[in-house]
Amino acid sequence: MAPETKTLGGGSLLIAWQLKDKRVLVVGGGAVASGRLESVLVADALVTLIAPFQGLHPLTKQFIDTCPRVTYHDRVFGGPQDLADVDMVLTAIDDVETSEQICAMCRTLRIPVNVADIPPSCDFYFGSQIRDGPLQVMISTNGQSPKLANIIRKRIEECIPDQAGEAIEKVGKLRTKLRERAPGIGGDVGKRRMRWMIDVCTAWEMEELALLDDEMMGKLLESGWEKGRVPRVDEVGGKPKQSRTPAPTSCTLPMLLGFLAGGSCLALIFWSRTKSVVWA
Amino acid sequence: MAPETKTLGGGSLLIAWQLKDKRVLVVGGGAVASGRLESVLVADALVTLIAPFQGLHPLTKQFIDTCPRVTYHDRVFGGPQDLADVDMVLTAIDDVETSEQICAMCRTLRIPVNVADIPPSCDFYFGSQIRDGPLQVMISTNGQSPKLANIIRKRIEECIPDQAGEAIEKVGKLRTKLRERAPGIGGDVGKRRMRWMIDVCTAWEMEELALLDDEMMGKLLESGWEKGRVPRVDEVGGKPKQSRTPAPTSCTLPMLLGFLAGGSCLALIFWSRTKSVVWA
Repeated sequence: MAPETKTLGGGSLLIAWQLKDKRVLVVGGGAVASGRLESVLVADALVTLIAPFQGLHPLTKQFIDTCPRVTYHDRVFGGPQDLADVDMVLTAIDDVETSEQICAMCRTLRIPVNVADIPPSCDFYFGSQIRDGPLQVMISTNGQSPKLANIIRKRIEECIPDQAGEAIEKVGKLRTKLRERAPGIGGDVGKRRMRWMIDVCTAWEMEELALLDDEMMGKLLESGWEKGRVPRVDEVGGKPKQSRTPAPTSCTLPMLLGFLAGGSCLALIFWSRTKSVVWA
Repeated sequence: MAPETKTLGGGSLLIAWQLKDKRVLVVGGGAVASGRLESVLVADALVTLIAPFQGLHPLTKQFIDTCPRVTYHDRVFGGPQDLADVDMVLTAIDDVETSEQICAMCRTLRIPVNVADIPPSCDFYFGSQIRDGPLQVMISTNGQSPKLANIIRKRIEECIPDQAGEAIEKVGKLRTKLRERAPGIGGDVGKRRMRWMIDVCTAWEMEELALLDDEMMGKLLESGWEKGRVPRVDEVGGKPKQSRTPAPTSCTLPMLLGFLAGGSCLALIFWSRTKSVVWA
């Protein structure tokens, strides 16, 4: 259905920004900065971190010590020269004036910038996030309620299948193998590949996809792709997931208890009657 | 717990890009372009659309006809002059060469760009999305499996409370009213405001928050904020949501059936014994 044009508005453009081998400058080393560091490292960025050593959060220190993609400078922001060849800037410092100056320089140089806690100085915001391997989910309430964003994030976390991340990773590998076996960009083969991958993802459970190993993938391509069908999990040497119907335990126990209670009650009635008869 | 540095990678930076009153150029008017149009209109962008009329998707036409924020040019992309004063460029045309030329110009001018179907020509990708008023959720599998992204999106859609969007909107309004009543940036009052809002969002159900109207908000602030407490829904004139505990039906019925079955069985045993005695 076509969206109501008049209801379009009030939101943000949710996007997955690509940072592989891009240079990100992080100014500040506290708790907020450590979160920013993690976010950009997840996205394979090359990070320059500028922050006095005494204010570093333990997590920030850990990233500096263990991640070769982080270049650390123990000092405060030094001016426009710190922005040379930078593709993105994230600041998380208490100094509002310096923050706003950095933002102004970034705007002039057209470098995307986020200044923590100063919305007008942000080209983009960070939302509440979930990450499970290649799966990433962002929840944004567009600044209306961070707490509800958090509550919703928790609910979403609970309903994402346990092995979703692993399943996605395996499906990604299967896709690569399929492209090697049946190469070509777009066209008929591209459409067939896409259709077959969709069929596999639809026919198999997430937990089953997560179990795919090289051998199973080989068999799946051999007896599936080559024959234009989707084999069952056990046909390629996998163990199918237990039936989707809910376990009957939830009904069995109360029923059993009821059975025993019903029996006992009646037994008690008979027994008391027998007694009455004897005593009568 | 600190994240394992070695597992950080392979992802994107999920962000909520701000487009309010920014100029977005959309090149192309087909199905993909109509989706892009919707996404940027949701984010309050000012859109220039360049695409020959004969290739327009019905939805694209609808946006042109009904949305004053869309300026339409019935022609193909004309060169660098089309990029003047543009803050973001999205192309969705079949012409790969022109697409790559547009991308190159954008890179020179440092304009964020997304070229549909050509990943290396994208500064950012679009993910599978859910939108409910101010609530926006994006699911990204980082290109590994669009189908699984779709399956996960559907599962997430099912577990987001029905009135989440409305609840967020109402909480946003309540926050604005609270800020008017107790103004000041940061400091103690800021912390108190944040704490009280968190308490309200935690104590009330999503469905209850969604029911908040001006009168209820007034009472909530009067008898809640002013007295440092969180009133119940019915105290401010609202109807509380039915109890959170699951309906007992799921246990009662099997238990009752069991009870009857147990009783009947024992009755049958007694009856058959009595019979045997009589018949003996």
